[in-house]
Amino acid sequence: MNNTFGTLFTATTFGESHGKALGVIIDGVPAGIPIDENFIQRELDRRKPGQSSVSTARKESDTGEILSGVFDGVSTGTPIAILLRNSDQHSSDYSNIAGIFRPGHADYTFYKKYGIRDYRGGGRSSGRETSARVAAGAVAKLFLKENGISVRACTSQIGKIKALPPYNWEEVEKNIVRTGDKNAAEKMVDAIRLAAADKDSIGGAVYGEITGLPPGLGEAVFDKFDALLAHAFMSIGGIKGVEIGDGFEVCERFGSENNDQMDANGFLSNHAGGILGGISNGNTVTFRLAVKPTPSIASLQKSINIQGEEVDVEIHGRHDPCLVPRIVPVVEAMAALVTADLLLRSRSDRM
Amino acid sequence: MNNTFGTLFTATTFGESHGKALGVIIDGVPAGIPIDENFIQRELDRRKPGQSSVSTARKESDTGEILSGVFDGVSTGTPIAILLRNSDQHSSDYSNIAGIFRPGHADYTFYKKYGIRDYRGGGRSSGRETSARVAAGAVAKLFLKENGISVRACTSQIGKIKALPPYNWEEVEKNIVRTGDKNAAEKMVDAIRLAAADKDSIGGAVYGEITGLPPGLGEAVFDKFDALLAHAFMSIGGIKGVEIGDGFEVCERFGSENNDQMDANGFLSNHAGGILGGISNGNTVTFRLAVKPTPSIASLQKSINIQGEEVDVEIHGRHDPCLVPRIVPVVEAMAALVTADLLLRSRSDRM
Amino acid sequence: MNNTFGTLFTATTFGESHGKALGVIIDGVPAGIPIDENFIQRELDRRKPGQSSVSTARKESDTGEILSGVFDGVSTGTPIAILLRNSDQHSSDYSNIAGIFRPGHADYTFYKKYGIRDYRGGGRSSGRETSARVAAGAVAKLFLKENGISVRACTSQIGKIKALPPYNWEEVEKNIVRTGDKNAAEKMVDAIRLAAADKDSIGGAVYGEITGLPPGLGEAVFDKFDALLAHAFMSIGGIKGVEIGDGFEVCERFGSENNDQMDANGFLSNHAGGILGGISNGNTVTFRLAVKPTPSIASLQKSINIQGEEVDVEIHGRHDPCLVPRIVPVVEAMAALVTADLLLRSRSDRM
Amino acid sequence: MNNTFGTLFTATTFGESHGKALGVIIDGVPAGIPIDENFIQRELDRRKPGQSSVSTARKESDTGEILSGVFDGVSTGTPIAILLRNSDQHSSDYSNIAGIFRPGHADYTFYKKYGIRDYRGGGRSSGRETSARVAAGAVAKLFLKENGISVRACTSQIGKIKALPPYNWEEVEKNIVRTGDKNAAEKMVDAIRLAAADKDSIGGAVYGEITGLPPGLGEAVFDKFDALLAHAFMSIGGIKGVEIGDGFEVCERFGSENNDQMDANGFLSNHAGGILGGISNGNTVTFRLAVKPTPSIASLQKSINIQGEEVDVEIHGRHDPCLVPRIVPVVEAMAALVTADLLLRSRSDRM
Repeated sequence: MNNTFGTLFTATTFGESHGKALGVIIDGVPAGIPIDENFIQRELDRRKPGQSSVSTARKESDTGEILSGVFDGVSTGTPIAILLRNSDQHSSDYSNIAGIFRPGHADYTFYKKYGIRDYRGGGRSSGRETSARVAAGAVAKLFLKENGISVRACTSQIGKIKALPPYNWEEVEKNIVRTGDKNAAEKMVDAIRLAAADKDSIGGAVYGEITGLPPGLGEAVFDKFDALLAHAFMSIGGIKGVEIGDGFEVCERFGSENNDQMDANGFLSNHAGGILGGISNGNTVTFRLAVKPTPSIASLQKSINIQGEEVDVEIHGRHDPCLVPRIVPVVEAMAALVTADLLLRSRSDRM
Repeated sequence: MNNTFGTLFTATTFGESHGKALGVIIDGVPAGIPIDENFIQRELDRRKPGQSSVSTARKESDTGEILSGVFDGVSTGTPIAILLRNSDQHSSDYSNIAGIFRPGHADYTFYKKYGIRDYRGGGRSSGRETSARVAAGAVAKLFLKENGISVRACTSQIGKIKALPPYNWEEVEKNIVRTGDKNAAEKMVDAIRLAAADKDSIGGAVYGEITGLPPGLGEAVFDKFDALLAHAFMSIGGIKGVEIGDGFEVCERFGSENNDQMDANGFLSNHAGGILGGISNGNTVTFRLAVKPTPSIASLQKSINIQGEEVDVEIHGRHDPCLVPRIVPVVEAMAALVTADLLLRSRSDRM
Repeated sequence: MNNTFGTLFTATTFGESHGKALGVIIDGVPAGIPIDENFIQRELDRRKPGQSSVSTARKESDTGEILSGVFDGVSTGTPIAILLRNSDQHSSDYSNIAGIFRPGHADYTFYKKYGIRDYRGGGRSSGRETSARVAAGAVAKLFLKENGISVRACTSQIGKIKALPPYNWEEVEKNIVRTGDKNAAEKMVDAIRLAAADKDSIGGAVYGEITGLPPGLGEAVFDKFDALLAHAFMSIGGIKGVEIGDGFEVCERFGSENNDQMDANGFLSNHAGGILGGISNGNTVTFRLAVKPTPSIASLQKSINIQGEEVDVEIHGRHDPCLVPRIVPVVEAMAALVTADLLLRSRSDRM
Repeated sequence: MNNTFGTLFTATTFGESHGKALGVIIDGVPAGIPIDENFIQRELDRRKPGQSSVSTARKESDTGEILSGVFDGVSTGTPIAILLRNSDQHSSDYSNIAGIFRPGHADYTFYKKYGIRDYRGGGRSSGRETSARVAAGAVAKLFLKENGISVRACTSQIGKIKALPPYNWEEVEKNIVRTGDKNAAEKMVDAIRLAAADKDSIGGAVYGEITGLPPGLGEAVFDKFDALLAHAFMSIGGIKGVEIGDGFEVCERFGSENNDQMDANGFLSNHAGGILGGISNGNTVTFRLAVKPTPSIASLQKSINIQGEEVDVEIHGRHDPCLVPRIVPVVEAMAALVTADLLLRSRSDRM
């Protein structure tokens, strides 16, 4: 089950960046959920390349075709398959690096694992793989919506530029870096352009939250809500750190500062990020993720080729100089998949 | 499978902190591994309470009894069950908080999830649950050892006191805070004592690494090596953040700084923490974890009881004022379980 | 997960016939189910050896100790572990066959699989392993009982002696062969005694049914209700055939004979055995199982030893001359586990 | 995971008989296996409708398109997705039975399970679903072939006509009923034609075997080789009984007759059907399956409609009067999937 995520509400994905198609089978979707095909496409469009001046010039149509599991606009209980045909496959972009392991990429590790070098644009470890996740996440969001739960994320940092909370969620889709701080947006754009102009790339961070949750979601030991979120987020290429609630700030804290006390109206703070003992407490679940700078850069780097010989390499394909803006919908998708799965699992909690 | 971790090399645990016993079934252990029962016990002893002046005065024998799966000192291929009888069960310690939800604990969320209030010391969400993980992790370590792989961790921070890398691994078990920086050890001890004297508790951080890994471990999409580690670590009670490699430092980095370039002798740096595209690259896998301050503190806090009425609460049970020193072996155990599982899974990578 | 059965309501077992103990962790049990410890013990007693003159003289105490997951007499939602200590372990019974592969046993295949010869009474492939299944099945039955569902089975054939349906369920526990046909019981006892006197053993069949089922249990494709039952039953040592409903009688039938037609009051027949397209239709689920004759017999047989040399072997341990009477409660346990699991899974069928 | 089969070598399928497409993701396929696309298509052609005068006149193209996981003719280790577009979808065939539950079909149980009536030709529970299984099974066969293992099956009975073993495997694809007994073939054809002429359908049986197996495949307790085969076969619509080896013949046997004794050259008989204690013993694995008569018949039957009112129904769609000939390749596919999965799982048996 290397390419399946989830226990009851599951996504099984396939497809290489430069193969014929990508896709996903979403299984365990309860019957009777209104499936809005336009919503799924809008989510895919948020992830697709070529959206703005700070993303790659690559054009992928990213059109999702629902092949099964929906009848008269609602889910039938059977698996929903969504197909994403590849169109703009410039394999030739990669011919010059076919025998070379690109620094910061999975080229080397894939080759060591499988003994095969599918050089066409990163194959299965390409960011393009996440389009199938977004399609699955969109279906999860539709299920969560019926239960009053929603998931949202935004860019909270690009390089040294940090967005100032609380975030304005109305702003997020209005700026090309997808940040919730209008004032930071322009500076973030500049930081990305500067890096790109310098044949370089830049890192950042994503903040996200899940609202409308009932208390009681998450398993008590291994499949804690936060553990599944950490799994989900860290499985996105380029994520190097995950914080739940106040995250690494707790290292310097005293218990008296960090505990969320309660009164009759509920919790008096939310340092825990809505999760206690791995189980949602009814507060908003909050998280923050570290996103590494895009490994593909046009400046000169040292590497080796498939024969083990040293080579100099410059990556001239069409790549985002910063992964953060386009990773936001992927983060939301993964959070939605985790939440949908735990919501179904919680149905077995009591007699 | 709420209480099972792993795909091929699995640990299924049971037991409440104040029930009859805890235990674990370790399944998928290949036949022929020398099982050193003394080693397993030493690992359990590293986690058990009452070890030092900075840990709880609670005495748990934590004696592991192997019930199955071992014959003539080697694993037989059948499941290895290890039983840990509870002995020092002062349920009476908890009678005064039986109807109260302790701040920062899972009391409230457990009650909301299952509709049942098992007040005896945290029940399943007690730190005591981790003894079963340590037993399983010890078996995983024995398997990894046969493959030249080892796992180690140490305290890297207590409150504002940070250990200075590179860590001296010889020192870790020689000081009661389990840090790899001899100079920081005394200050860390002081910080914990100060917090305890103040009826408070304190947070910290753990650093760890996996050495001797071949390249090629980890699945390409959802079950990336780092994703499974994040899942494993975040499933330990009290962990609020996970970093792989340079973690949140990547947010401010440029690609040219962050990529690990290669020459004929291998990687020239290890910012990635030994994992590329979710697959081990042969370098040391490194990680850092945020540990929250113990939620049980003796100072006055606001909470509610099971009837929803507001109450003031002081927690006077026997608790560690800092979770970090005793969480170190748990972290190692979880890292070992992940690695053992991926090692077995990698056996199916090629024809 | 080699030793785990089920998806949501799961049983993970361990233990060798002549090791320290056997046991099971039952996970996914919803909170709030009354757990009657005496009932669990009665079920274990139905399976234990030494019950009657047609079963082995071996005495196993088979006392189940609940270690976790139950508080104040009800399930808490956490895993229920049940321990069964081994007591009457005559390993010496087996010393004379330690290096020999017994015909009809798993000795040879275990050795070929794991490279290890744990000769003590069959180890993990002993019938004793099924005691852990019975303990788990008893908990499943308690859950099903709360939902109005029950499972029952009886001996329908011993050698050439067939019980005449409809079976009288009141009679089953009153005769030592556990058949539902009072008239056949004595003849069955005679058939077993005759085989035993002849240093031989004898086969038979079990009939069983699940009543009180709602329509809608079972998954549509791979995890059909009948498919999971077949898996469950065939996993019991000695079962060589499984029929659902009319089973092999359908081979000679026409569709017009075999279809179960309906009127406003429900189905007019039950050839299908209560399952259509893998999903329960509200009728009684019925099944029949073929049980092979006990492989351990005292008469002379040809075999080889661990060195590959030809040997003659007589098995003089204490064995049942017929497996059927004691396999009945195991069959019920497996049917109960499947049904409990599907009942929980069905909770996710609809929005 | 309702629509996934397998643990390491897995098939996840989707698609309704009258939706846009069916398909499968085959995950866990080791890298480096030659993938012969023509072979996959030939297997699909063996299952497709309209092959002969005894199968339905329905024409489905059943063309499999590989979308991923294959590069330069070999598997890459990433998931192989195969798409099967639906073409000849006469939904209108079903308009007259849209509100009626067809006897012997899953119409009623699907409706009770999901609350939705997707009347188009059986939807997910149509026999058409098995085309995705055959595609997955073909990939499994290619993997097994590299390991010297092969799977084959044939029709052993139609109504009262039984094929006489030993079967002539050269004959199977030469007659339209796919039997291994040339002499029985014509009589079988006649039996089917007679049933069809009578507006009726007829049942039968399939015999199959797996050759070239090493000893040691299969797990010792729940996932015995025979248990997984029983699961796999019983999950095929229309299968009502499964026998391994001599199956129900063992009910009347004595142990001295039934045990397979050994000498230095191996087993002296194969009553067990190649499996002991759930683990392959190196002999040929043999099995026999009961196939019910097609439920769709043109003669008058009683049923109810969605409003619960009594109706008379005649099914005039294009259906096979006998399922057996076209079920043969599906049986082979399921056996191949089980074997491939256990072959991979066995790689973790030893250190």
